[in-house]
Amino acid sequence: MTVNLLALSPLTDADIEILNSYDVVVITPENLTTKHYPNIDISYGWDADIINNILATPNHQLKWIQAYSAGVDYMPLDTFSAQKIILTNASGQRSIPIAQSVISYIFYFARGLNIYQNQKKWQPYTNQFILQSLPVIIFGTGQIGQQIAKYLKSFDTPVYGVNTSGHPANNFDKVFAINNLNKLPDNIAIVINSLPSTAQTNHFFNQQNLDLFNDLFLFINIGRGATVNETDLLKKLNDGTIKYAALDVTTTEPLPANSKLWQQDNLLLTQHTTWAGNSEELFTIFMKNLPDFINHNPLSVNVVNYDTGY
Amino acid sequence: MTVNLLALSPLTDADIEILNSYDVVVITPENLTTKHYPNIDISYGWDADIINNILATPNHQLKWIQAYSAGVDYMPLDTFSAQKIILTNASGQRSIPIAQSVISYIFYFARGLNIYQNQKKWQPYTNQFILQSLPVIIFGTGQIGQQIAKYLKSFDTPVYGVNTSGHPANNFDKVFAINNLNKLPDNIAIVINSLPSTAQTNHFFNQQNLDLFNDLFLFINIGRGATVNETDLLKKLNDGTIKYAALDVTTTEPLPANSKLWQQDNLLLTQHTTWAGNSEELFTIFMKNLPDFINHNPLSVNVVNYDTGY
Repeated sequence: MTVNLLALSPLTDADIEILNSYDVVVITPENLTTKHYPNIDISYGWDADIINNILATPNHQLKWIQAYSAGVDYMPLDTFSAQKIILTNASGQRSIPIAQSVISYIFYFARGLNIYQNQKKWQPYTNQFILQSLPVIIFGTGQIGQQIAKYLKSFDTPVYGVNTSGHPANNFDKVFAINNLNKLPDNIAIVINSLPSTAQTNHFFNQQNLDLFNDLFLFINIGRGATVNETDLLKKLNDGTIKYAALDVTTTEPLPANSKLWQQDNLLLTQHTTWAGNSEELFTIFMKNLPDFINHNPLSVNVVNYDTGY
Repeated sequence: MTVNLLALSPLTDADIEILNSYDVVVITPENLTTKHYPNIDISYGWDADIINNILATPNHQLKWIQAYSAGVDYMPLDTFSAQKIILTNASGQRSIPIAQSVISYIFYFARGLNIYQNQKKWQPYTNQFILQSLPVIIFGTGQIGQQIAKYLKSFDTPVYGVNTSGHPANNFDKVFAINNLNKLPDNIAIVINSLPSTAQTNHFFNQQNLDLFNDLFLFINIGRGATVNETDLLKKLNDGTIKYAALDVTTTEPLPANSKLWQQDNLLLTQHTTWAGNSEELFTIFMKNLPDFINHNPLSVNVVNYDTGY
């Protein structure tokens, strides 16, 4: 049977070749017309207007939506449930782009690109480092933390971790319990915060906990903005006890135009964008379910439960 | 026997601990006084004034100088030879910092830091990539090329190579002969030039050879400036067939203030600085010789021949 897939998230030529080999016809938004609406079986990605139009089409045959995000709270789950449409999310598919952005932050400062970027005259070499001389500690040893640690080990970087109990985790040289941080190594140069936002982690990175570290080369936050006291962080960025910081997340998002963070020269701000990669990972998870869909079997990977909402 | 080492290049606390375990006393320039001059056995690193003062000191006992550089043409080799002082260089120790700078260039553009760096307002995510979707070809499969390839494979990047005969090299998926480039894969996104400067490679990267590639995401030169026709490269950076470039080396160095390269927005210039790392690698090579020095054996690693000058 031929299956019609509406490609609302990008697909590479290689992806499309694979889909065609499954007898899946790919329809792009560019050549989508209302006459396609009744015949779409799968939506790969999401566009509220287009999908709502399809859902409003009598006898539409949309059966499966592959979300491009982990969270799906912005979608009409009740409608999907009522119409027996399966929704699969992209949960767990973002650790690679996030980890690669963390590596990009580290290299940006370690190799002096923050200095060279706006350099318009010959510059004798700046103080720059190889990663094996910048020991790292990662707060949070979950999927994202482990992916970061895995990449760092390929540069022979000493990598320490922090989690709730201090239990070991893949790719970490040593893991400490978050309530027992008084014996940390004294040579840590980079702190990476991938903590979730909970009552326990709120403003965890305040003056006192930032003082656990001697002069830091770099503080990175790709967890949640609420875990950092931004006033305390700015104080240390200004007194030089933290040389640089890179924040993908902030207490308030979007970050207000009048925030002091925008004006801090030794701070790199990306705007909650480290998740952004390309379509490859989404396609990989999608393909785990496609054969079952073709064969009318229940899907097994990342299927959203409409009762819990995730 | 106690050995006195003058630390003109930086040493970490860990390095000093190791040296002390060999009964080596470390003297830093800060606490160096003329009364030390007769007692220095080893100079770790180089400072012309200090070393010349020591060499001018009657009955000085300087026996070994560890250069921080590969080339030692700036040193008084004849004096060393006449005074039977051993000189060891840092040859071959730069592939790691150079390769890490190449990785920093790739992540800088792939993760959009070139856009975020000067971004002073909230920015929806830019077009950014993970490295597995950016196939790379490296011209030159020697020590530096292999180190770059090794790092890239840890990000699952497809890595192709080019060398004289097309012979296989470590960490490369496939290697092509430089005189047979008509069958290159058509999905190459990044070209890394680590070619030496020879009659054959002069202006190798001209319009014609740059046209071997479809739209390139990034062109990198960490080889020699003479291998690139900068006029042709600028043309392609301006017509968009090459999106970005990163050059550590240029035809003229220092690059003149009036060079158009300084004004090219989609070009990152570092100033022949990718070699710069920290003292760790220098210490590693130094330590290969120290036990022989302590035991009065001839040194075997990176010993400079005063007849050839390298």
